[in-house]
Amino acid sequence: MPVVTLTSDFGPGPFAGLMKGVILSICPAARLVDLSHQVPPQDVRAGALVLEQALGVFPPGTVHLAVVDPGVGTARRPLCVQAGGQFWVGPDNGLFTPVLLAHPDARAFLLQEERFFRQPVSATFHGRDIFAPVAARLACGLDPRELGPEVSDPVRLEWPRPRVEGGVLLGAILGADAFGNLGSNLPRPLVEEFLAGDEAVVRLRELEVRGIRRAYGQVPPGQVLALFDSLDRLELARNQGNLCAHLGLDPRRVFGLEVQVLRRRR
Amino acid sequence: MPVVTLTSDFGPGPFAGLMKGVILSICPAARLVDLSHQVPPQDVRAGALVLEQALGVFPPGTVHLAVVDPGVGTARRPLCVQAGGQFWVGPDNGLFTPVLLAHPDARAFLLQEERFFRQPVSATFHGRDIFAPVAARLACGLDPRELGPEVSDPVRLEWPRPRVEGGVLLGAILGADAFGNLGSNLPRPLVEEFLAGDEAVVRLRELEVRGIRRAYGQVPPGQVLALFDSLDRLELARNQGNLCAHLGLDPRRVFGLEVQVLRRRR
Amino acid sequence: MPVVTLTSDFGPGPFAGLMKGVILSICPAARLVDLSHQVPPQDVRAGALVLEQALGVFPPGTVHLAVVDPGVGTARRPLCVQAGGQFWVGPDNGLFTPVLLAHPDARAFLLQEERFFRQPVSATFHGRDIFAPVAARLACGLDPRELGPEVSDPVRLEWPRPRVEGGVLLGAILGADAFGNLGSNLPRPLVEEFLAGDEAVVRLRELEVRGIRRAYGQVPPGQVLALFDSLDRLELARNQGNLCAHLGLDPRRVFGLEVQVLRRRR
Repeated sequence: MPVVTLTSDFGPGPFAGLMKGVILSICPAARLVDLSHQVPPQDVRAGALVLEQALGVFPPGTVHLAVVDPGVGTARRPLCVQAGGQFWVGPDNGLFTPVLLAHPDARAFLLQEERFFRQPVSATFHGRDIFAPVAARLACGLDPRELGPEVSDPVRLEWPRPRVEGGVLLGAILGADAFGNLGSNLPRPLVEEFLAGDEAVVRLRELEVRGIRRAYGQVPPGQVLALFDSLDRLELARNQGNLCAHLGLDPRRVFGLEVQVLRRRR
Repeated sequence: MPVVTLTSDFGPGPFAGLMKGVILSICPAARLVDLSHQVPPQDVRAGALVLEQALGVFPPGTVHLAVVDPGVGTARRPLCVQAGGQFWVGPDNGLFTPVLLAHPDARAFLLQEERFFRQPVSATFHGRDIFAPVAARLACGLDPRELGPEVSDPVRLEWPRPRVEGGVLLGAILGADAFGNLGSNLPRPLVEEFLAGDEAVVRLRELEVRGIRRAYGQVPPGQVLALFDSLDRLELARNQGNLCAHLGLDPRRVFGLEVQVLRRRR
Repeated sequence: MPVVTLTSDFGPGPFAGLMKGVILSICPAARLVDLSHQVPPQDVRAGALVLEQALGVFPPGTVHLAVVDPGVGTARRPLCVQAGGQFWVGPDNGLFTPVLLAHPDARAFLLQEERFFRQPVSATFHGRDIFAPVAARLACGLDPRELGPEVSDPVRLEWPRPRVEGGVLLGAILGADAFGNLGSNLPRPLVEEFLAGDEAVVRLRELEVRGIRRAYGQVPPGQVLALFDSLDRLELARNQGNLCAHLGLDPRRVFGLEVQVLRRRR
């Protein structure tokens, strides 16, 4: 029972359901799981962040269909990425950046063989006509090398990388979740190595938090804290509150905000 | 593995999930696909437009359960429509108009046999108590003639039809999608026959667009264009923008706006 | 084909999908049904009301995974409730109150055996790391007694109970649905016994409605009425309108509003 996940910026209308109809027509045994269809319209980076959350969570053989595709119908390449025993199918516009970063040995294939597409192919809905049918065929066992030639240079978005500068560990906020928690790109091992046993001081704009907690509930309701999130990366949050709203930030515009970690001797 | 699609105006609450619980209790093998549960409350026409999108996309035998039902509990008839090897189940209030237009040989049956219902039948939630159980039984092979007598006059909404008047091809906007693209009722063959090789001038209110493009990306970001949409009908859009918002239109109130196509000699 | 339902306050992001990935990794045959992921953030009572709607609707053996968990990572207990041949899995914070009220013989078990969890267990996402894997194992046949010791005192929220005072039947609004209908905690048998054949006068704040109707359509559009809802409890509604909005009420703050039923001799 192969799993196909779906990610898009299609919103609450029927487009996601139509892709499922195409998939079930081709691979009736496929198990369908929505990751999110509320990616902000044409926000490729937000789509990439959704795919990043799903790394390592789905069973072997899972196919991740992702359609955030402002260039639909133009020359941008349709792609299949293969890595770690799973597949990602969608437009070659950077959507797969976190997959490529997590899997340096990932391979990518051009979706060139039109016999695997739904005919006729529209110019406006490749999710239904190209990506869903290819995802369905992969779910039902197609070898990705049958799709088309290998591609050596899939598009990668600029992606912030942690660095140490002047004794400060510098990271970036990647996004806000539904609770207003702000997740960064700073993995726990890096933070712990940097701190070397000292206490952390975490800064985001005017905000300064001392120490890294284990759980939200370790501070009183309404208080801001730092902790490691479900991807084991540094997160800033407000216990039983919405930190993003508290700071007056638009959750869609937090990407790239600088986070600083400083050491304070205990 | 029979497919059952679900469409409703139930919003994000548990009502759609309850219909699924009823379906899986009766037909455990059913594969469930949401089309949309964000149909504006009691907007039968918007529900009909969702069903129209799904025509031709789902596998043979699919059952489409659709509940936008302002008349629940009154004398409006509960119905099953059979056409093209698929089924539609819901209230007889015009929801199935696009199915009836696409399938002149469609047959309709009254849901009269109460033994196929969930008991007791509430007066407020026929989706759970009548339509879901009937959809489940059809998915598991019930002959629709067992449901009740054939109905010869299922309700049809008024539906705009293209026409030519004074040398102008007149169509109507049917709806706006999540990207603010405005889809019309003008199919490509009709438009191309009308143009007979000439260039098109497309008008919507004060907007005038020359030519019909193949894809959004053929014009610069922010520019308005005409193209054929995923149903192969004329659409007006704004590349990487939201045309509906750009024109100050409420996406729920665009139905019926006149679209004009004129010929301009090349 | 065991059914697993999902309820959370995770909103439209990928977190619900991640729980599904974990479930399908452990129990590939599980059938997944979303009840709602739009429970207002950290509103345990609203989550409990979603679970109440699903009582009696799903097939035997269904596992209900529910994660509204403001105390994640603290000492609040992770729990499995077993009742009526079904299971509920989530945090012990009152989420299961309606299940415990409906099933006085319900049993509860502490989720103590870490071998059933996903490793490592994060401090912020027990839905993915504890509750989803346990739900998957129950769906695939695990005996809940294997999970950990029985718990005799699962947390119960205060829950309003109908009472008669000074010849008036007093109930409480429990919630508003997507249509703005206001559902109460007054079951039909109690109301009918109280009325003993007399006509009802139903009061909510300044609103006064005479008689209890059978269906919305029995009054003209826009008129307020009382009727029995899909759980067979007294509801106040506005035919083809939104009563909640009409009364200027925030749908998230209607819980506990007093409803009065008086008798009027016919």
